[in-house]
Amino acid sequence: MSQAPRASAVVGQSGGPTGVINASLVGIIEEACQHAEFEHLYGAVHAVEGIVNEQFVDLARLSRETLESLATSPSAALGSSRDKPDRAYCENIFQIFQKRNVRYFFYIGGNDSANTAHIINEMAAEVDYDLRAFHVPKTIDNDLEVTDHCPGYGTAALFVANAVVGDDLDNRSLPGIKIDVIMGRDAGFLTAAAALGRQRVDDGPHLIYVPERPVTIDKFVSDVDSVYRKLGRCVVAVSEGIKDGDGVTWAKRLAEDTEVDAHGNVQLSGTGALADFLARQVREKLGVKRVRADTFGYLQRSFAGLQSPTDAAEARACGRRAVTYALEYSSGSVAMKRIGEGREYAVDYFRTDLSRVAEKTKSLPDEFINDQGNNVTEAFMAYALPLTGGLAKTAYLSGNARV
Amino acid sequence: MSQAPRASAVVGQSGGPTGVINASLVGIIEEACQHAEFEHLYGAVHAVEGIVNEQFVDLARLSRETLESLATSPSAALGSSRDKPDRAYCENIFQIFQKRNVRYFFYIGGNDSANTAHIINEMAAEVDYDLRAFHVPKTIDNDLEVTDHCPGYGTAALFVANAVVGDDLDNRSLPGIKIDVIMGRDAGFLTAAAALGRQRVDDGPHLIYVPERPVTIDKFVSDVDSVYRKLGRCVVAVSEGIKDGDGVTWAKRLAEDTEVDAHGNVQLSGTGALADFLARQVREKLGVKRVRADTFGYLQRSFAGLQSPTDAAEARACGRRAVTYALEYSSGSVAMKRIGEGREYAVDYFRTDLSRVAEKTKSLPDEFINDQGNNVTEAFMAYALPLTGGLAKTAYLSGNARV
Repeated sequence: MSQAPRASAVVGQSGGPTGVINASLVGIIEEACQHAEFEHLYGAVHAVEGIVNEQFVDLARLSRETLESLATSPSAALGSSRDKPDRAYCENIFQIFQKRNVRYFFYIGGNDSANTAHIINEMAAEVDYDLRAFHVPKTIDNDLEVTDHCPGYGTAALFVANAVVGDDLDNRSLPGIKIDVIMGRDAGFLTAAAALGRQRVDDGPHLIYVPERPVTIDKFVSDVDSVYRKLGRCVVAVSEGIKDGDGVTWAKRLAEDTEVDAHGNVQLSGTGALADFLARQVREKLGVKRVRADTFGYLQRSFAGLQSPTDAAEARACGRRAVTYALEYSSGSVAMKRIGEGREYAVDYFRTDLSRVAEKTKSLPDEFINDQGNNVTEAFMAYALPLTGGLAKTAYLSGNARV
Repeated sequence: MSQAPRASAVVGQSGGPTGVINASLVGIIEEACQHAEFEHLYGAVHAVEGIVNEQFVDLARLSRETLESLATSPSAALGSSRDKPDRAYCENIFQIFQKRNVRYFFYIGGNDSANTAHIINEMAAEVDYDLRAFHVPKTIDNDLEVTDHCPGYGTAALFVANAVVGDDLDNRSLPGIKIDVIMGRDAGFLTAAAALGRQRVDDGPHLIYVPERPVTIDKFVSDVDSVYRKLGRCVVAVSEGIKDGDGVTWAKRLAEDTEVDAHGNVQLSGTGALADFLARQVREKLGVKRVRADTFGYLQRSFAGLQSPTDAAEARACGRRAVTYALEYSSGSVAMKRIGEGREYAVDYFRTDLSRVAEKTKSLPDEFINDQGNNVTEAFMAYALPLTGGLAKTAYLSGNARV
C-alpha cells in the first residue's frame, strides 16, 4: 500500500439513524483531527445527496463542547438519506471527490452504505485514483455480516428492554394481555432484546416472535391463551416483520395503502395497524377484555437521554478505527470481535473487506431461538446483555408472603 | 385532634401506575417504620381489591436494598386496581379496617383514590372510629386540584420530552411529517411536555394540540401544511384526548369497538388508530409522501430506567409527609406549593382536605396555551421544565456554515 496521501476527507451518515451514529461521527472527527494527512474534513449534508449537491459542513472546526453534545445526541447530525446510489449516481460522487481532492471517504451506515462505499472505491481503483473508502457499521437491526454486533444495536436493545421491563411491571399491576410491536424488518435481534430485562421467573415477555420463525395467527393466539391461563396475564413481543405461515409478512398483508421506499421495502414502522390487528384477534378469539397493544415505533432508534455506555464507547471507537485503518489500507469496513464474555466482556476491532459486508444481511442464529419458535434462549441473553451495559434491578411486591 | 393511636396501617396504590408511584410507597414505608404508632404496615395487593379480599403483604419487613430498588421501579409494586368503590364497597373496606384495628389508611392515586379515602374516612367519623385516611397524589396527567403539580408527571414529562427531542432530530435527518400521539384524556399537561426539550428556534414539536382546545381536521391539516411549507418538515404533538370542533373526541369518533372502563372512560391508549387516522388525513390532503405517526402508549407511564430526579424525590417526600400528617390530623391529601422558580425551584409540602381533591380535575391553564390553540407558551415551559430535572443538550450539524 502506498503512503497515505495528504488530501481531504468526506464523512457521511446514511439510512435510519441510531442513538450512537453521532458517536461514530465524533470518533472519526477526533481521530482525523490528530493526523496531518487530512486537509479538509467535509461533513456531507444528507449523505450522498449532500455530496452530489456539494453541501458540506466543516467538521474540523467543531468545539470540544459541541463534540461531546454530539456524541450523546441521537439521530444523524449531518442529515441522512434513503437514496440508494446506482452506478451513475456513484460516478457523480466520484467526480466531486476528484474535483475537491477527496481521497478519504468515511460512510457510517448499514449494508447499503457499505455497498455505496464499495462501488465508489472500485471506480477509483479503475482509474488509479488513491481513494480510501471506509464503512463504519451502524444499525439498530444488528444484521450486518462479519462483525460480532453493530453499533446502534446495544442502545436500541437497552430502550426495548427498559420499555418491556416497565411494561411487564405495568401488566402485573393491572393484569391483561399486552402486545408490543418492535422494529426489525428481517432480523429478530431487536425484538429478542425484549427479554433482556427479565429478572423473576414469571417476568415477561412471555412470548417472543421474530421474522426468522413464521407463525400462523392460530398458533399465536393459542400460545397467548396458554400463558394467560397459567399466569392470568401475558406480555408478548412481536417483530414488525413477523411472517405468516406462508412467509408473507403480516404487515404487508394488512397494508391498505402500501408505501414502498427506494430500497423496495414496505413501510412497517410509523403505523399501529399490526399491533391493533393482533390485539383485535386476541380479544375476539380469547374473549379477554383487557388487551392492549403498543407499537414502539421510531422511539426505538431516536429516543434521547438513553445510551448504552458500552454501545456509545464502541461506536466512537469504530469511528476512530476507520480513520486509522484509512491511513494504512485502501478500503474496508470496521468490525468487532468479542474477546471476553459476561462481566469480562470486551471487544477487539478489525478491518474487513467492504464486499463481505455490502448488501449482505445476518439473521438471528438458530441457537438464539427456542425450539417452539416463540422465545429466546440463554445463549441469546449471554450474547446481547453486555451490549446494553446492563439494566437496573426492579422490585415487585404483590408476590411477597401474605400477612 | 386526639393523640395518634397505636394501630395498624393499610397502604394501597390505585389507578394507572407511574414511574414514581413506588417512590411514594417507599416514602410511606420508611417514615412509618420510624414511628412506634404503627403496629402492622399492610400493603394491599391490587388496592381496594386486596383490602376486601384481605390480601396484604408485610411492608415493614422489606430490606433497605429492596426499598431502594423499589424506589426506582416503575409501575405499582403492590398491584393496582381500576375498581371505583361505591358506598357498599367502602363499607366492606371499613369492616376489614375495624377487624384488623387499622386506623391509618394511605392511598396513593388520583382523584378517584382521594374520593375513596374520603368516603371511608366519613364512614369512620360517623361511628367515632379514629381512622386517619391520607391520599398521596399520583398521576402522569397532572390534573389534580390544589397541588402545584402531581408526582408522576415530571417523570412522564421527561419521557415525552426526550422522545420528542429524539424524534425531532430524526425528522431533521430524514425530513417529513411526523405525528406523535401522547397520553392525556382530558388535560393537556403531558402533551404540552413535548415542548420541553426544544433548544433551537426551529426545533419541534412545531404544533401541539391539547384537549382544552378543540380543533377541526381542516384546521389541523392546514396548520401542518404551513409549517411544512416553511421548514420542509413538521413534528406534531397531539393529545389522545384531542377534540373535534364540536367537542367530541376524535378517538371516540374513530372507535370501532369502544371499550369503556369502570369509570365510564373510552379506551384511548393501547391503540394506534388515532395516530394512523391523522397520518392518513395529512398524507391524503397534503400529498406529502413521508408521513409517519407514533402513539407513545403505555411507555409514557411505565418506561424503566428513566426517572426525573426531582419527581422521584418529591414523590418520596409526599409519601413521608402523608405519614407525619397522619400522626397529627384525621385526614387529608398531600399537596405541593412552589416556593422558587427556575434554578431556584423548590417546593413546600402541605396538607389539604380530601374533599378539595376528590373527583375534581384541573385543566391546562389558559396562560399555558398560545392564542391559536396550537402550541404552548413560555409560562408553561417555566412551570414544567424544573419538574423534569432538565434535559441534556443536543447537537445538530446540517445547519452549520457550509464549505
